[in-house]
Amino acid sequence: MKPTITAFRDSPDRGQGLARDMPVRWALEEVGQSYGVRLLTFAEMKEAAHRARQPFGQIPSYEDGSLAVFETGAIVLQIAERHAGLLPRDEAERARAITWTFAAVSTIEPPIVERDAAILVESDQPWFAARQPLLDERVRLRLTDLSRALGDAEWLGPTFSAGDLMMVSVLRRSSGSGLLEEHPNLVAYVARGEARPAFRRAFEDQYAVFTAASRREAEAG
Amino acid sequence: MKPTITAFRDSPDRGQGLARDMPVRWALEEVGQSYGVRLLTFAEMKEAAHRARQPFGQIPSYEDGSLAVFETGAIVLQIAERHAGLLPRDEAERARAITWTFAAVSTIEPPIVERDAAILVESDQPWFAARQPLLDERVRLRLTDLSRALGDAEWLGPTFSAGDLMMVSVLRRSSGSGLLEEHPNLVAYVARGEARPAFRRAFEDQYAVFTAASRREAEAG
Repeated sequence: MKPTITAFRDSPDRGQGLARDMPVRWALEEVGQSYGVRLLTFAEMKEAAHRARQPFGQIPSYEDGSLAVFETGAIVLQIAERHAGLLPRDEAERARAITWTFAAVSTIEPPIVERDAAILVESDQPWFAARQPLLDERVRLRLTDLSRALGDAEWLGPTFSAGDLMMVSVLRRSSGSGLLEEHPNLVAYVARGEARPAFRRAFEDQYAVFTAASRREAEAG
Repeated sequence: MKPTITAFRDSPDRGQGLARDMPVRWALEEVGQSYGVRLLTFAEMKEAAHRARQPFGQIPSYEDGSLAVFETGAIVLQIAERHAGLLPRDEAERARAITWTFAAVSTIEPPIVERDAAILVESDQPWFAARQPLLDERVRLRLTDLSRALGDAEWLGPTFSAGDLMMVSVLRRSSGSGLLEEHPNLVAYVARGEARPAFRRAFEDQYAVFTAASRREAEAG
């Protein structure tokens, strides 16, 4: 039996691969595991049936037999634990890869999401311009440290891992902000992630959901 | 050989156990593993020697022989993987416990920290009062969903796990805000966590660091 994930029926990012099903799709492609996708409208995400899978009414969730988990980082880690290819065999290196998975969602992502949320929700507020440098600085602080940690290495550990997969996914949200672009090694790191065949396949699959939604909309309109 | 963690020499929370070494101390106490503590000043946290352990110049870090990790959630998970008591044996339940660990640091903590940061950094800004309801609402949204998911259960899974340890730790930041107090089941959940003997021991140990720092300050002053 194949695992099933949930994803947006109508992705708010127009198929740019920034929705959180993307890292899960990417992880499944990296390990060669086929999967099913249950597409949900925003209304369906808030219904009890989905909240039983994902208590916060979000995507993605992941079901595989008796296994039912949520949280992008946790799903990626489950996939990595169950298949070869996303966690080093060496115990210390494996622990480092898990550390970077947490760093992605807990240290790097929050200030990036916070800055995006302000642009989305508060851009018409009188304080928006005055707060922007503060929000930029918080992203900059983390990216500067991350850039130093990566240095001229290809990946954060000796080989590509679940930690890189989550970190590249999170950094992609900052692409084009000008902040990621202050660190050429991080730009190149993201590009290396995006160039992986598994990333491309996952990207195409989630993009096909967007084009199908656009087609439905055109037909309805 | 005992593992070594890092912690603040001068904790900014006056020993309330909100610093991020607290969940790590608690996890070590739960599994009965003794440990050493390297106390760092804010200046020492930013030095190269510590950044080699923790690239973002923060505490805690965790070293145990060749194992060197950071990120509170990742450290707690490493401790849980290496000792009995913090992860269920059943595979599906174990995966759920890991899911809640990620939910704590990735879904619940960011809006709580964001609200705290505004109070700390922006309370003298003209927009502070106008933004406060927005920040409250973002915390409220997550706590309402979490309260519903917990229901009248004792813990988030069938037994106390690393997921509860991280979730209680994160919710403690919201104690007294009035937002946690809107959910009596979450208040009781936090109290159950705080009543555990391992929590008490960890709390006392980190509190002793604060009293030692106060004594030094009194002697110096």
